[in-house]
Amino acid sequence: MANADANADTRPQRVLSGIQPSGQIHLGNYFGAIQQQVALQDDFPGECFYFIADYHALTTLQDADALRANVFDVAVTYLACGLDPDKALLFRQSDVPEVTELTWLLSTVTNMGLLQRGVSFKDKAAAGINRSVGLFLYPALMASDILIYNSTLVPVGKDQIQHIEMAQDMATHFNTTFCQPKKKGEVVEPVLVRPDYRLSKTPYVPGTDGRKMSKSYGNTIPLFASGKQLKKAVGQVVTDSTPLGEPLQAEGNNVYAILELFCDEAELEQIRGWYAAGARDGEAFGYGHAKQLLAHKIDAHFADARARREHLLANPDEVEAVLQRSAERARAVARETIDKCKRACGLR
Amino acid sequence: MANADANADTRPQRVLSGIQPSGQIHLGNYFGAIQQQVALQDDFPGECFYFIADYHALTTLQDADALRANVFDVAVTYLACGLDPDKALLFRQSDVPEVTELTWLLSTVTNMGLLQRGVSFKDKAAAGINRSVGLFLYPALMASDILIYNSTLVPVGKDQIQHIEMAQDMATHFNTTFCQPKKKGEVVEPVLVRPDYRLSKTPYVPGTDGRKMSKSYGNTIPLFASGKQLKKAVGQVVTDSTPLGEPLQAEGNNVYAILELFCDEAELEQIRGWYAAGARDGEAFGYGHAKQLLAHKIDAHFADARARREHLLANPDEVEAVLQRSAERARAVARETIDKCKRACGLR
Repeated sequence: MANADANADTRPQRVLSGIQPSGQIHLGNYFGAIQQQVALQDDFPGECFYFIADYHALTTLQDADALRANVFDVAVTYLACGLDPDKALLFRQSDVPEVTELTWLLSTVTNMGLLQRGVSFKDKAAAGINRSVGLFLYPALMASDILIYNSTLVPVGKDQIQHIEMAQDMATHFNTTFCQPKKKGEVVEPVLVRPDYRLSKTPYVPGTDGRKMSKSYGNTIPLFASGKQLKKAVGQVVTDSTPLGEPLQAEGNNVYAILELFCDEAELEQIRGWYAAGARDGEAFGYGHAKQLLAHKIDAHFADARARREHLLANPDEVEAVLQRSAERARAVARETIDKCKRACGLR
Repeated sequence: MANADANADTRPQRVLSGIQPSGQIHLGNYFGAIQQQVALQDDFPGECFYFIADYHALTTLQDADALRANVFDVAVTYLACGLDPDKALLFRQSDVPEVTELTWLLSTVTNMGLLQRGVSFKDKAAAGINRSVGLFLYPALMASDILIYNSTLVPVGKDQIQHIEMAQDMATHFNTTFCQPKKKGEVVEPVLVRPDYRLSKTPYVPGTDGRKMSKSYGNTIPLFASGKQLKKAVGQVVTDSTPLGEPLQAEGNNVYAILELFCDEAELEQIRGWYAAGARDGEAFGYGHAKQLLAHKIDAHFADARARREHLLANPDEVEAVLQRSAERARAVARETIDKCKRACGLR
């Protein structure tokens, strides 16, 4: 078998990431994904392709208005959090319909068994989500999203590794099926690039109840909350019933665990001192004070982002213009790939 | 549940048919499909959408050159057999990539069970064809092909009825999922038209061995054979060993059965007379004579088509121009449908 990998070591990296258009973005989304994605734009300027996965979302969200609102919301959030459209593309998945065409082509070289072994399908089905064909096909569409942009690097969490492996398999199957020499001595370039993944180092983001922050647990703190809304959300962080003035345990305390996301080690040492003493500057220090501190930290951390967000909410055309400009660039790459693939298959 | 059917009795019919780009087109293809499809262009002028199913073909034919040759061959055949591109569209399936996009949208409203009950997938898998995802998805792509052109009438053989029923189901699921009023009194038009099928009345076309003529049985007579090639093919029709000059049975005789496709009742009566007498005009009449007669009939029947075919083979640009002009018209319809569908889902 020929080396069916169009990667070359000298090729510049292209980073691909999909963004779920979920409503109510929270701290877990920020520290678990947004922060890293925005940072990558400086490591790989011009080579970060971020798409808002609206085709995928249809497998679980079948409400047009809600989907549109979520897509807009997620676009605003990324731009507010510092995504620079000159360094990273941010576009709607469905503005590049070529990915559905590649999905079909990949499906013809993919055995049922590969998708049937998909963990995500099994998990979602077990969680009671309707066993639709779309849910089953999900990894094929995802592979298509990765492969159509010649992506080399896909930052993932552990639970996503299998999807990248599937994309690797599909790329290899396609190349070995359709890019073989017919005559001795003929050289046929593989058309699809085999992507690699990189495990993202993301901190654990506890929700208000200490479990991983997640919309499905109802334990989130919204990313852009401020004032009363923020105070209320932080107020819901669960603590024990140590009375005011007595020493507090930082270890295992949810407020402290969230503070860790916002403070450097020097600050944390100081805070641990206040916890241990049950006092700060001679005055009693209890969980209420810790929560005040947390609310203040969150408020300050996202102050600039909130201001940018307000601006974008008032100027939706700016957001739309970014999405469309990015989609144009992404689509040009996708068209080149799909044209090569079609020629390789014998389509026009 | 609202009436999720965008059909209206007053709507003009739109006929849809897919054409497999198989190599070596034979009499079975002609009498089983081509003849009826060409005839329909006069019943529904301007409303016959015929696509050459090259996306579908990839599930079984993974050889670019062979696929391209087959697609060209089938296009030439239809034009040679009288398809008039001013009355019927003839285009490559893959020149309207929007069908793959609709396939994804349909997959999100289609339960796995619907496709798992697909008889064609089971049959093909049982016949040893690789159980690919594409093979499994086949009916969803077919539904998309039907629905994207607002087809109302799909001529089918018995074994295809289930596919149309699946397309009907998918149209209904899509409409009921995405085209529901949100407010009381609001009227939301369904976007997908529920298609009907019409069982094609096709004659039984026996192959040279009496079984149904089929490439997989190796018992075909090529459509455009003439001269020696035709003589040879007809020579292979299996007969019994009745000696020359003795009475022959027309009933159950393969030569006679094929002659039935080419002769009117008056001619057949005459031929039955020759069979019964074992003689024609006072001379002995045996199977060899019957075969000569058959070869002559075939040759004459397709003489004009053969001439047109020769012209087209020498002028491939004419064929390509027809395919592209048809694709343009088909694509305009497809775009309108997919735009409506995307809006209904909440995609841009």
